[in-house]
Amino acid sequence: MFVSKEMHLYQFSQQAAATVKVESGRTVKVETLDAFSNQLKDEHSTFNEINMARVNPATGPIYIESAEPGDTLKVDIHKIELEEEGVMAVAPGLGVLGQQVETFSYKRMKVDEHGVHFSKNIILPLRKMIGVIGVAPSGEPISCGTPGDHGGNMDNTHMTEGATAYFPVAVKGALFALGDVHATMGDGEVCVTGVEIDATVSVTLTVLKKKSTMPWLENEQEIEVISSALTIEEATERAVKEWANILTERTPLTFNEATMLLSASGDLSICQVVNPLKTVRLAMSKALLKQTGLIEFPG
Amino acid sequence: MFVSKEMHLYQFSQQAAATVKVESGRTVKVETLDAFSNQLKDEHSTFNEINMARVNPATGPIYIESAEPGDTLKVDIHKIELEEEGVMAVAPGLGVLGQQVETFSYKRMKVDEHGVHFSKNIILPLRKMIGVIGVAPSGEPISCGTPGDHGGNMDNTHMTEGATAYFPVAVKGALFALGDVHATMGDGEVCVTGVEIDATVSVTLTVLKKKSTMPWLENEQEIEVISSALTIEEATERAVKEWANILTERTPLTFNEATMLLSASGDLSICQVVNPLKTVRLAMSKALLKQTGLIEFPG
Repeated sequence: MFVSKEMHLYQFSQQAAATVKVESGRTVKVETLDAFSNQLKDEHSTFNEINMARVNPATGPIYIESAEPGDTLKVDIHKIELEEEGVMAVAPGLGVLGQQVETFSYKRMKVDEHGVHFSKNIILPLRKMIGVIGVAPSGEPISCGTPGDHGGNMDNTHMTEGATAYFPVAVKGALFALGDVHATMGDGEVCVTGVEIDATVSVTLTVLKKKSTMPWLENEQEIEVISSALTIEEATERAVKEWANILTERTPLTFNEATMLLSASGDLSICQVVNPLKTVRLAMSKALLKQTGLIEFPG
Repeated sequence: MFVSKEMHLYQFSQQAAATVKVESGRTVKVETLDAFSNQLKDEHSTFNEINMARVNPATGPIYIESAEPGDTLKVDIHKIELEEEGVMAVAPGLGVLGQQVETFSYKRMKVDEHGVHFSKNIILPLRKMIGVIGVAPSGEPISCGTPGDHGGNMDNTHMTEGATAYFPVAVKGALFALGDVHATMGDGEVCVTGVEIDATVSVTLTVLKKKSTMPWLENEQEIEVISSALTIEEATERAVKEWANILTERTPLTFNEATMLLSASGDLSICQVVNPLKTVRLAMSKALLKQTGLIEFPG
């Protein structure tokens, strides 16, 4: 199954018409546009020419048969294949240093198996990841530029090959979409873009008949909850609360012991600090969780 | 040279009397008390009995001859030797979930080469680190519970064996101190304590005749600036600005290119979110910096 990048949207919405319908368990190749919908591929682009309504496209939505509100969508990320050119941009008012940036500028970079050719002397190692990924919310549509409990623009560097993501299904069919692939991005994405690039991503989409309330990610070593809110402080509180409640409900630990365990061994990290809501992840080692008796995905 | 844990202070202060004087380049063994000054070592302690004025002791201050305001103190961390018992505590009002914590509780844990014996079934891997480390500020004294550009309670999990820390010297002799060692702590220290433990730390203290304005840390892979402020957002802005200015001044990169490089390859991480000021680190790979032409400690 293949979904072309021509089939993209700019908001996660229960009203969006499905591009394809798939059975649970199917593997899908999803082709994606870069975060600017290729508007910066023209050598002479200026910031004023960018149509901001066409930023952060996500390919989809994909309707997964049997997905119902209250289920969880499991997304195994197999492979991220990059095109040959990426682009970065900075602009006044955007990113952590937006107030100091005086002029718009962008930079196109060749990308190959050696990495990202940032300049003649500087080659950045590849750190492929998916910026925007998620499902439709049950309420109002949410712009693909914003993260939330439906997923969206979480910009989590762990969202990469070999990882499994989990999203709470809010509408019939889930309406899954992904886009905004980066050839590399640092944790934080401090100046608003990674190396934005067209890509093709293979994922397996599986419906789990169990409830979750926030996005989770699992890789070989860790399980993490992903939390977004207006501030890093609020996002942090939501993440710690979710883990503390799960550990208290599903292991013999008391609430106070669960908080101690999180403080001693949970790693709180920044995903991004530049989108309308900020995103953190709180990760626990799977080897350690096994000792508590918690071995299944804890969403 | 050995400095006993009996010689400790609860604030970094230019007025503090030096416990010892050493030449630049000397290696010192610093013995430290746990973060509660051992007040929780009594089986029947209650939260009300803790004297909060005796929390976060740091051993010192150590006067380094030849250190003058405007210099940088380089601290090579060689070895952290732990005692055999650690303690964690949670209390109403403290930490990210302070409002949900109903009662004070604490837990003493055996610590050995296998790790931290959290409970009969749960052994946490050792992740030794130094919570409080720094020099005296030039102005008012700063409590050891608070981080800042002098160092202090940064709770950075990278502050461990093999790392080198750098602090801006603000007063004659630098007046270096360290304490608050953890047998393990997760990034964030979300519920206010790591596994607090007495320890002995060997460091080499060297005066560099060059200026810096913030704390830095270097390990085998990375160089990072450490930034503290009232919010994570403010701490982030200070860290990104410091790196962007250094890259712009000391490499051929323009300011806009420097911000792109930081966004593509700089990793913004949380040190802690539970002290009076919050702390982040912004790290760049040394292999990548070498390509920009920046090879020396950039403070």
